[in-house]
Amino acid sequence: MKPLGPLPPEYAAQSGELRIGGRPAESWAAEAGTTPLFVYDFAIVAARIARFRAAMPAGLGLHYAIKANPFPPLVAAIAPLVDGLDVASRGEMVRALTVAPARALSFAGPGKRDDELAAAISEGVTLHLESDGEADRALAIADRLGVAPRLAVRVNPDLELRGAGMRMGGRPSPFGVDAERAAALVRRLRAAGADWRGWHCYAGSQSLDTLALIEVQAATVALAGRLSDEAGATPPLVNLGGGFGVPYFAGDRPIDVEAIGVGLVDALDRRAGSLADSAFALELGRWLVGDAGVYLTRVVDRKESRGETFLVVDGGLHHQLAASGNFGTVVRRNYPVAVAGRMGAPADDPVSVVGCLCTPLDRLADRVQLPRAGPGDLVAIFCAGAYGLTASPAAFLGHPPAAELLANA
Amino acid sequence: MKPLGPLPPEYAAQSGELRIGGRPAESWAAEAGTTPLFVYDFAIVAARIARFRAAMPAGLGLHYAIKANPFPPLVAAIAPLVDGLDVASRGEMVRALTVAPARALSFAGPGKRDDELAAAISEGVTLHLESDGEADRALAIADRLGVAPRLAVRVNPDLELRGAGMRMGGRPSPFGVDAERAAALVRRLRAAGADWRGWHCYAGSQSLDTLALIEVQAATVALAGRLSDEAGATPPLVNLGGGFGVPYFAGDRPIDVEAIGVGLVDALDRRAGSLADSAFALELGRWLVGDAGVYLTRVVDRKESRGETFLVVDGGLHHQLAASGNFGTVVRRNYPVAVAGRMGAPADDPVSVVGCLCTPLDRLADRVQLPRAGPGDLVAIFCAGAYGLTASPAAFLGHPPAAELLANA
Repeated sequence: MKPLGPLPPEYAAQSGELRIGGRPAESWAAEAGTTPLFVYDFAIVAARIARFRAAMPAGLGLHYAIKANPFPPLVAAIAPLVDGLDVASRGEMVRALTVAPARALSFAGPGKRDDELAAAISEGVTLHLESDGEADRALAIADRLGVAPRLAVRVNPDLELRGAGMRMGGRPSPFGVDAERAAALVRRLRAAGADWRGWHCYAGSQSLDTLALIEVQAATVALAGRLSDEAGATPPLVNLGGGFGVPYFAGDRPIDVEAIGVGLVDALDRRAGSLADSAFALELGRWLVGDAGVYLTRVVDRKESRGETFLVVDGGLHHQLAASGNFGTVVRRNYPVAVAGRMGAPADDPVSVVGCLCTPLDRLADRVQLPRAGPGDLVAIFCAGAYGLTASPAAFLGHPPAAELLANA
Repeated sequence: MKPLGPLPPEYAAQSGELRIGGRPAESWAAEAGTTPLFVYDFAIVAARIARFRAAMPAGLGLHYAIKANPFPPLVAAIAPLVDGLDVASRGEMVRALTVAPARALSFAGPGKRDDELAAAISEGVTLHLESDGEADRALAIADRLGVAPRLAVRVNPDLELRGAGMRMGGRPSPFGVDAERAAALVRRLRAAGADWRGWHCYAGSQSLDTLALIEVQAATVALAGRLSDEAGATPPLVNLGGGFGVPYFAGDRPIDVEAIGVGLVDALDRRAGSLADSAFALELGRWLVGDAGVYLTRVVDRKESRGETFLVVDGGLHHQLAASGNFGTVVRRNYPVAVAGRMGAPADDPVSVVGCLCTPLDRLADRVQLPRAGPGDLVAIFCAGAYGLTASPAAFLGHPPAAELLANA
């Protein structure tokens, strides 16, 4: 048997039934009128934001990276509580503009097409430039449009975020302008009349290493200082990136956000003179919403085969690819999973939970111990709030879409 | 530098430009009015079907597994050339019924919901039963509907397909009824008045091992004979599965379909008396359509970073997840990739091709040698005809959908 990931501490049970957003899991399935479904508890998101605000230096901005979960009611609920929305496509930008002003938006990502650059510049959205070539295109488009574009420079740092699930710094990268060229680009942007908005640096993501996060933030503040000195200009905003991870797997421990706040106070106290008047922000996605989502799917079949038991559910990797271990992970490990109606019951039934897709890839929990369950029971797969439905191949095998519901908004 | 996969031999160039379906690649982008796009050349599919017919024993049925590529015009073009369509969901079934009669359809997959079973039974589609529990539900629903359901039994064989990309046999499995219980189930189905349609056995997929395919087909014919003897009944149809792979990666060699046909003639000659009057079929998806598809995406940026060059394209893993190595593969390897306008030019430019998504996972070719390319050039990613667009997270990051076009239909 293999271990399950840890259940996020925000979830409780009552009379043995999982509660989400203060209501029984089954009541959400009833409200959706179908399974599978995702339920996002906005109270968990709001509590994370409040915890962030309490832990971080006064005035530190918080941006939400929409790509983590673009469900429109969720984005609309988050927008008033944060200082910015980070978008990664024109599609995300258009949606974000319905709930936030253009000046609160920033648009990062390699491979922005000319139509995306033009739309952002016209709207007054800040572009995070990823290369000199993109800078050239943005300046040319702005010139044609007759506006001063809001341009920040994303920096490919000469440092790397230790312990991060994904590393983006210190190496050749499609993301950002190499640190050693960044100041020259800023001088060029300012000479061309652009409204330079500052620096963006994103060294990695899904880190559970608190010390590494503290170190990388301090190094990023120092890097921004060096680059600003070199550019001879004060950045209005330094976006320090994010990288705050959430525990998915057995042995994972949550990060210590309060310690990160203390570290960041220290780093900002020691910042270069060129940053004295700069604002700072962190950009978070997964840490804000990841634990707030639960994927609920119903058992269709309980099947014995050659000594093993399979709970076959009506959901699968077409809705929650990451839980099947097929998205960005090398070794398949189990997410936290529970039988929603048997919380606290003895986990003495060795089973695998498999999805309804006709492929062996569709395995949502591999050889785990759960309370006994059978057809009709709801299975809850946690950590489904970030990179869940939109990061999954929804059209695969032509099954119905998953419902999405927002609690406590 | 890392090797690229082998270009499928069906593609040619003229004056240095890749031709797809007899036309220049750029003409397809012009027809779509956008990039990225998928182009499927039906002539390649039809040639595969003709090759299959010529190689295989007379009267062997050919089924198309729609999940490989459910693009409606493609399915409509294939339907008249094959003897059956295999579906994996009610959604696929509804689409298949628009181009084929119910009697040509079979529905496999674990986790079929009651509404799916009822729809299939009402329509007269053959259900491939995956478990005793599913059999119970199907019989109860048929009883309620007052019809004799068309039921085949999918067998979880006691053999395994060697060298297959995915193995489905010989072990505990969510797929099929264990061989050791299958005959008893058939007796039960027949006693209940069901229209037993035969056996289905699927031992694995994406195999490039011709000898293993020959052996597994022979073993499957023998297994079907044993089980039929045990059940005391002649199956109308034995679906021997598929598993024919296509070469994706350097060193991959295509299977020898003609040798498989010779092997199958031999296996059928030696079949048990209980199978004397049975029909046989193979069910293929990937081998029919995989090489027929090309994903075309345009270079947006050519970027140098710390000694490496990135071609950033307007497509990415949201359309072609498998090419990024994030779907069912352990070690990331490169698909066949070409610069559509520089076919035959010296491949002397070391680059990585990355998608437009803001994630390091989005890499379509990792450190390869291509003819020099830059913004505006079309990049062709081959082997995009099967498990491409529908097996990818299309909504991820909110980018526009890919166009799909069918050539030579």
